[in-house]
Amino acid sequence: MKLIIANKNYSSWSLRGWLALKAFDVPFEEVKLTLFSEHFYEALSLYSPVKKVPVLVNDGVVVWDSLAIAEYVNETFLDGKAWPSAAADRAMARSVVAEMHSGYSALRNEMPMNCRARRRIEASSQAQMDIKNILALWQTLRHKSQAKGDFLFGEFSLADAFFAPVVFRFVTYGVAMTGLAKAYHQTMLDHPAMQAWLEEALKETDIVAEDEAGEPV
Amino acid sequence: MKLIIANKNYSSWSLRGWLALKAFDVPFEEVKLTLFSEHFYEALSLYSPVKKVPVLVNDGVVVWDSLAIAEYVNETFLDGKAWPSAAADRAMARSVVAEMHSGYSALRNEMPMNCRARRRIEASSQAQMDIKNILALWQTLRHKSQAKGDFLFGEFSLADAFFAPVVFRFVTYGVAMTGLAKAYHQTMLDHPAMQAWLEEALKETDIVAEDEAGEPV
Repeated sequence: MKLIIANKNYSSWSLRGWLALKAFDVPFEEVKLTLFSEHFYEALSLYSPVKKVPVLVNDGVVVWDSLAIAEYVNETFLDGKAWPSAAADRAMARSVVAEMHSGYSALRNEMPMNCRARRRIEASSQAQMDIKNILALWQTLRHKSQAKGDFLFGEFSLADAFFAPVVFRFVTYGVAMTGLAKAYHQTMLDHPAMQAWLEEALKETDIVAEDEAGEPV
Repeated sequence: MKLIIANKNYSSWSLRGWLALKAFDVPFEEVKLTLFSEHFYEALSLYSPVKKVPVLVNDGVVVWDSLAIAEYVNETFLDGKAWPSAAADRAMARSVVAEMHSGYSALRNEMPMNCRARRRIEASSQAQMDIKNILALWQTLRHKSQAKGDFLFGEFSLADAFFAPVVFRFVTYGVAMTGLAKAYHQTMLDHPAMQAWLEEALKETDIVAEDEAGEPV
């Protein structure tokens, strides 16, 4: 089984698909394509009918989009264990993941993932609202799940995988945090799979135009 | 169980969540809030911690976002039957649904759902590409599934529910179609649940500002 991803410093969608396998110890071969190269889409087309990463290829089955990959991996290899076991928690987890998947667009646009950069920006009021909502959500979920483990629903679940790029963004853009939300953020940074991703992100050599323009990266 | 939705003429996300129940004959009580009223968000807050429709409330479990609702309904009431039964088809169905859920933004922005309107617009090249990609996808999926039924994966599935708003949009904006894609579009329009939605959409009385500006509605 192959997972096709892009640059680990920048590709937030790749990170989500990658964690859906790595954090649950599902064996796979990682195929990393070079972003910003003329061959990126050419190489990608060998694996996928759509020109997006991540793509999972397993025994002739092609799954794209991080959320479809997450559900596929959960169902095919993890017997449903990548979601919380209680039905109400599972419904909530899928709700917050779906919201992350299609929403928070101000935050995503203004604060692109760039693991190695440290930046300060003037966030729009909408992006500030996105940040506030995410921190309030983390606080609420961690308050409920404290007795069950250290992650949003106790044990690490796909919900954590979907917030992982936000965890790196909050470091990059110096977002202030307090309480259980701050503790959760640190727990995520300390997760072995997040550490492994970050270590490789720091070694990536391709650089986007905005970084070339002089931002510290 | 209650499903909270908004105006049937305009609310494309509501349509997806509604079809996830209605098209699979899952009994529910529909709660329709009036869009554009000062009480919309106030009323919504009675049901949901987030200010978005649709929201499903069942025995104290609150599920929001059409995709999370779809997975919840499939798992809780339909024993998995709302997705195609073959694993490869299911992976493909989840991929195209996830793509619809987070993508095709040009089409969604330029061609908002408005079941009763008939309009001609100058679509951007990106929106035209979205249309082309969706029609090519319908054509490909219908070519593969012809022997199994009339919908994208044979029998009606959640994939069809997610493309339902696009079906109405293509009527509103007069999108030209051919072949299997055109036939599928008609099949969708003829589906009893789509007919039921449309009938009520035509009766809606609230009107958005852009319609008041003189567009035929």
